[in-house]
Amino acid sequence: MTQLCRTFQTAPAAVPKDNTAKYLESGLTADGFQAPDWLVPDIEDGTAPSMKDEAVENVIDLLPKYAPDFGGEIWPRVEWANDDERFRERGREQIHRLVAEVGDHVDGFVAPKVGRLDDVQEAAGVVAEAEREYGYDDGSLGLSVIVETPQARSDLRELALFGADSRLEGLVFGPVDYTAELGGREIDGERPRWDGLLETMSNEASAGGLVAIGGPFDQLYAERAGVTYYDAPAYADQVEFEAQFGLDGSWSLHPKQTVQANRIHMPTPEELERDVHKIESFNDAKSSGTGAVMVDGQMIDEATYRNFANTVETVRSIHEAHPTQTAEFYDEELLGRARDVELAFR
Amino acid sequence: MTQLCRTFQTAPAAVPKDNTAKYLESGLTADGFQAPDWLVPDIEDGTAPSMKDEAVENVIDLLPKYAPDFGGEIWPRVEWANDDERFRERGREQIHRLVAEVGDHVDGFVAPKVGRLDDVQEAAGVVAEAEREYGYDDGSLGLSVIVETPQARSDLRELALFGADSRLEGLVFGPVDYTAELGGREIDGERPRWDGLLETMSNEASAGGLVAIGGPFDQLYAERAGVTYYDAPAYADQVEFEAQFGLDGSWSLHPKQTVQANRIHMPTPEELERDVHKIESFNDAKSSGTGAVMVDGQMIDEATYRNFANTVETVRSIHEAHPTQTAEFYDEELLGRARDVELAFR
Amino acid sequence: MTQLCRTFQTAPAAVPKDNTAKYLESGLTADGFQAPDWLVPDIEDGTAPSMKDEAVENVIDLLPKYAPDFGGEIWPRVEWANDDERFRERGREQIHRLVAEVGDHVDGFVAPKVGRLDDVQEAAGVVAEAEREYGYDDGSLGLSVIVETPQARSDLRELALFGADSRLEGLVFGPVDYTAELGGREIDGERPRWDGLLETMSNEASAGGLVAIGGPFDQLYAERAGVTYYDAPAYADQVEFEAQFGLDGSWSLHPKQTVQANRIHMPTPEELERDVHKIESFNDAKSSGTGAVMVDGQMIDEATYRNFANTVETVRSIHEAHPTQTAEFYDEELLGRARDVELAFR
Repeated sequence: MTQLCRTFQTAPAAVPKDNTAKYLESGLTADGFQAPDWLVPDIEDGTAPSMKDEAVENVIDLLPKYAPDFGGEIWPRVEWANDDERFRERGREQIHRLVAEVGDHVDGFVAPKVGRLDDVQEAAGVVAEAEREYGYDDGSLGLSVIVETPQARSDLRELALFGADSRLEGLVFGPVDYTAELGGREIDGERPRWDGLLETMSNEASAGGLVAIGGPFDQLYAERAGVTYYDAPAYADQVEFEAQFGLDGSWSLHPKQTVQANRIHMPTPEELERDVHKIESFNDAKSSGTGAVMVDGQMIDEATYRNFANTVETVRSIHEAHPTQTAEFYDEELLGRARDVELAFR
Repeated sequence: MTQLCRTFQTAPAAVPKDNTAKYLESGLTADGFQAPDWLVPDIEDGTAPSMKDEAVENVIDLLPKYAPDFGGEIWPRVEWANDDERFRERGREQIHRLVAEVGDHVDGFVAPKVGRLDDVQEAAGVVAEAEREYGYDDGSLGLSVIVETPQARSDLRELALFGADSRLEGLVFGPVDYTAELGGREIDGERPRWDGLLETMSNEASAGGLVAIGGPFDQLYAERAGVTYYDAPAYADQVEFEAQFGLDGSWSLHPKQTVQANRIHMPTPEELERDVHKIESFNDAKSSGTGAVMVDGQMIDEATYRNFANTVETVRSIHEAHPTQTAEFYDEELLGRARDVELAFR
Repeated sequence: MTQLCRTFQTAPAAVPKDNTAKYLESGLTADGFQAPDWLVPDIEDGTAPSMKDEAVENVIDLLPKYAPDFGGEIWPRVEWANDDERFRERGREQIHRLVAEVGDHVDGFVAPKVGRLDDVQEAAGVVAEAEREYGYDDGSLGLSVIVETPQARSDLRELALFGADSRLEGLVFGPVDYTAELGGREIDGERPRWDGLLETMSNEASAGGLVAIGGPFDQLYAERAGVTYYDAPAYADQVEFEAQFGLDGSWSLHPKQTVQANRIHMPTPEELERDVHKIESFNDAKSSGTGAVMVDGQMIDEATYRNFANTVETVRSIHEAHPTQTAEFYDEELLGRARDVELAFR
């Protein structure tokens, strides 16, 4: 895992309300488990065509005020389209303006509707250009892309090879556009789940050291016997499915989804206890002897050790970004051990 | 969708009956929903080795008589095999002879048992050669291939890249040979369904602008309590599964299957009503205002619009090829609106 | 099918018992259906770090004594890791030492944790180097690899292309490391099954003429009502699933698993009877006539014939390696017919 992204929460950057930055502001000021790892101010599909400029200005207005205290990362989604030059031009303008004005508060940009590798490289080039123009170090701003065209899926291996050594940091699934592009259909109320794509995307993200994020789940509410309720179990099913296949995080459209995905993609207290214990025992055994180290009857080789260490490092990252989450989720003594234990195989 | 191919119906071009062209003739003269989008006179596995020459002659005899009134396209399947020079030579002779004699009535050729990209390019070259020899414009005759070897599946991405700019127009799954090539086995009466292949083939066909067609379903009849009946539900299950994954059409072995697949791969009256309404409302709103257009509370961007327009364009294509199908399937007034509505985003 | 590998049985080459070669010896002397097609003396994860040298010596001690009477092939698994030079260096030393001392008794080597094509080529180069150094013909020693990193999966197509013309002979799935590398998680006790990977691996193995082998199943025992028992049905489910998808064989961790996988991956007596009968009838018809040959109302083309012949050739291979298995599994008269029938399409 290169990076922490349990939650990829999009927030429309301008909406037709009195406070057009309402959702953006609420995302930036969320606390506890409502705070996402990545907040994605959405200037693309979440914002009406007539409000794009206002969306950019909202981001420019709010980041200086809220970003310094925001624990996660901030990744605006700009306009882009592999098959339409005008959208790419707008995306270029949006990236330039945001880097010029609030580059210090942005971790990277999200480009939707990318095509094959050359299109992703063009988007990466636009970010590089803005970095140079406004005096940022090469590579200080990242790029993530929404995988929602057949061309992007076709080139996942090439994206992984590119991503292993570039500013490309994340692959995010976009099922609605993808299904439309393939002409897929809902049959008996069931949409295709695209298991093959998710498995391949998870693999290639791991191969290239990228984060892999699932698609949005928009059926937030269900109705039964005349009562409408937030459908927590349905979203949990999707997030667990994604976690099982090794996706690093899930897309959130709502603070309630963020709470769920943050928790599901986090090591459980039992996992943390188990892995901290293994490392502590390994450290003790190592200091008191030579040769192979056995812990609880299990031989600890470097691969096994790395799995334990991953758990601890993930918890440390979460603690650094969101200390109220770790404080609520883990026992204080266990968290202390996780923070203090020495991580070194040799 | 580049092309209309809800149904890929193979008809053996010569069978050991009094009228050896019985099935070919019946395919060419089918009407209503029994008329397939693509009729595939089968000179390959559907025709006995001893009747190959007669199969070619049957096609030459019947096309001038029936093709002018046939609404769909005509794509003979010739012999071919990536690993056997003799089959390729026979395929070459069959293509040359058919182009020479009935080239005006043929839309393209289907090559089975292709291997990697170089083999598909060889087949495309044979069609190009016949075009030149008999005075047809370059690219006037298409090529579709049956994906039924591990080499062809391995090269699906390369076929999509080639197909984006060549006479390659279709990818058709061939599960029987494919399963045998991989050594797959029926376990407890259940054959492998190859979901991964179908998902990838659907993706790559979309990436390359090709049509993607599912494999044949040969268990036409079932038996219960001593009564044998045509198993409509089993075939419908397969066709719906294929439609869900974005395949453009299904393979048909029988007029009854053609009726089913034509209907399942066709926009429903409800879908057509909904999308015609959206476009009509969009057109009204566009002419009366500026900026973002809302329809029924939904913002219409170009991607959304294209989905609506796809439905209408598909229905227009079906209407052009098979007016009796659209007349039977849709209300007259709705069909008139679908034919008349202006399709232009700007 | 290039090669027979119904069972890939790993045996730790040194264990902390009085006889450190206990499991290796038991694998080499197994008989009947307990004898695997490939015995894999495991010097990697099955052997403790402190016992690696002893593991190599055990293999050197036992092969001259037992290998001449062992019916299957012998493929030691050595240390290797695409991302750690030290493991590759140890693997190189182990390969050199084994080829020097017992090269006559070894069919090839298994390299774990390989990465992309270049890493697999490096492993192949080490085997080539040992061949040259100790006077073996080029290509006399094979290489198989464990697919357990995202890089290896990403390069499966490239491995197939390389394998079609090199010493690479097998692709073996390693689900535990693979799941850890992708960060996949067990949800409600259910591990991801990686169907997409298995389908792709089966396809690419067939495309490159390699054997494809499933991953180990380590839940050997289950418990119910206080009684612990060997869980034969659970392993059979996995092996049948693998057979359905065209994998050539299954990984075995125990003689009981070997018995099961040997049988499931073997043509059933009904299959053998059917295919021997088809070929006998084909031979009779061929000798008594000309043109297309019909058998039981079915036209026999070359592809159909090859399927029948495959069954017979597989049984002959099993008979050659493990005559007690074929004697136990098939009726004597049927086995005789399978051994005698002439296999020639023309």
